[in-house]
Amino acid sequence: MADEVKLYAVGGSPFVCRVKIALNLKGIEYQNFEEDLSNKSADLLKYNPVYKKVPVLVHNGKPISESLVVVEYIDDVWKGVPILPQDPYEKAVARFWAKFIDDKCIPAIFKVFGSNGDKQAISEACEQLQILENELASKGNKFFGGDNINLVDITADFLAYWLEIIEEATEIKLVTKDKFPKITEWADNFVNCQVVKEILPPREHLLAFFRKRFGKA
Amino acid sequence: MADEVKLYAVGGSPFVCRVKIALNLKGIEYQNFEEDLSNKSADLLKYNPVYKKVPVLVHNGKPISESLVVVEYIDDVWKGVPILPQDPYEKAVARFWAKFIDDKCIPAIFKVFGSNGDKQAISEACEQLQILENELASKGNKFFGGDNINLVDITADFLAYWLEIIEEATEIKLVTKDKFPKITEWADNFVNCQVVKEILPPREHLLAFFRKRFGKA
Repeated sequence: MADEVKLYAVGGSPFVCRVKIALNLKGIEYQNFEEDLSNKSADLLKYNPVYKKVPVLVHNGKPISESLVVVEYIDDVWKGVPILPQDPYEKAVARFWAKFIDDKCIPAIFKVFGSNGDKQAISEACEQLQILENELASKGNKFFGGDNINLVDITADFLAYWLEIIEEATEIKLVTKDKFPKITEWADNFVNCQVVKEILPPREHLLAFFRKRFGKA
Repeated sequence: MADEVKLYAVGGSPFVCRVKIALNLKGIEYQNFEEDLSNKSADLLKYNPVYKKVPVLVHNGKPISESLVVVEYIDDVWKGVPILPQDPYEKAVARFWAKFIDDKCIPAIFKVFGSNGDKQAISEACEQLQILENELASKGNKFFGGDNINLVDITADFLAYWLEIIEEATEIKLVTKDKFPKITEWADNFVNCQVVKEILPPREHLLAFFRKRFGKA
């Protein structure tokens, strides 16, 4: 029996795009079900009753949610281009940074825009970004994972693509080339990867969305 | 070369105990370095410069932090009694629930005690606990993982042991047998597992600590 792979998604979500990048990297075909978050489908509510959120991957009828759990699942099930390192220590390091991005960086950045650029929030977000900057600088690789993207890069898709668009929409600049040269370079490398470029949502749509959301439309 | 395994720890921490349970389950010998959190060791700051927190596992000189990352690492490196299911789907389900406990349950419960029993906070914590109660009820197993403890049970050690002690210290009761019969039964099974029982910190120490912390000493 051929695999049946369904993705419940919202095209503009960086969390959904993590899963799409992973699927694309592995060359997996799937059906995409675009959700209307103001009127969620019965399927989404059935498949993710705890969070009622996208992304949800349904593989041969079995649902998996939480983007990083899904990405690890994809890496577990489909061999080919690896997403996590094979070495247990390198794998732990990748999970550590993925968790750091989710638990520390992204919430700190959301606070900046949610507070309309509060100085304390900016300073806290820059502190987290500096940690990532240092990590990239100390390794000196093209990506967090080395020469190729891995779990950490995929987790950081928001930083590579969405952040700059929200900065433009809100006119609040967090990541400059001067301040974070390594993150800027990494972001450029990441969005220009073929497997990433192919699935990123159109810039203009996101810009219009965030301008509306942050009252700058 | 024999493995050198060091754990930077604080005995009373449920996050540290996750790692200790995992090490005990695998039968791994290690050196325990008890930290004074008011005067952290140079080693701790060196090994976990990002969070400066325990637990940190140092395996043959290589540091790993974040308790669930460490537990997965232990399971990856040392075979024997498994901590994560082997089946990719069951593994994803275990990671989903571990993340739920960390991201939703524990913060909701901390809010209850931090707010001295605010009604809204209690209601929100009970909502999260009800989701776990339903999960245990729907599976009907002794543990989240089935007949044996797994990643989810280990992640939930706080709920099994610490919570009841904090309830006594604060005189705020969240989990009763009437309201959460499955969680109560699971907690009892969990703390009575040999590998768990052997490493749990003494109840009286924790009770005194939490009475002091919540001003009921």
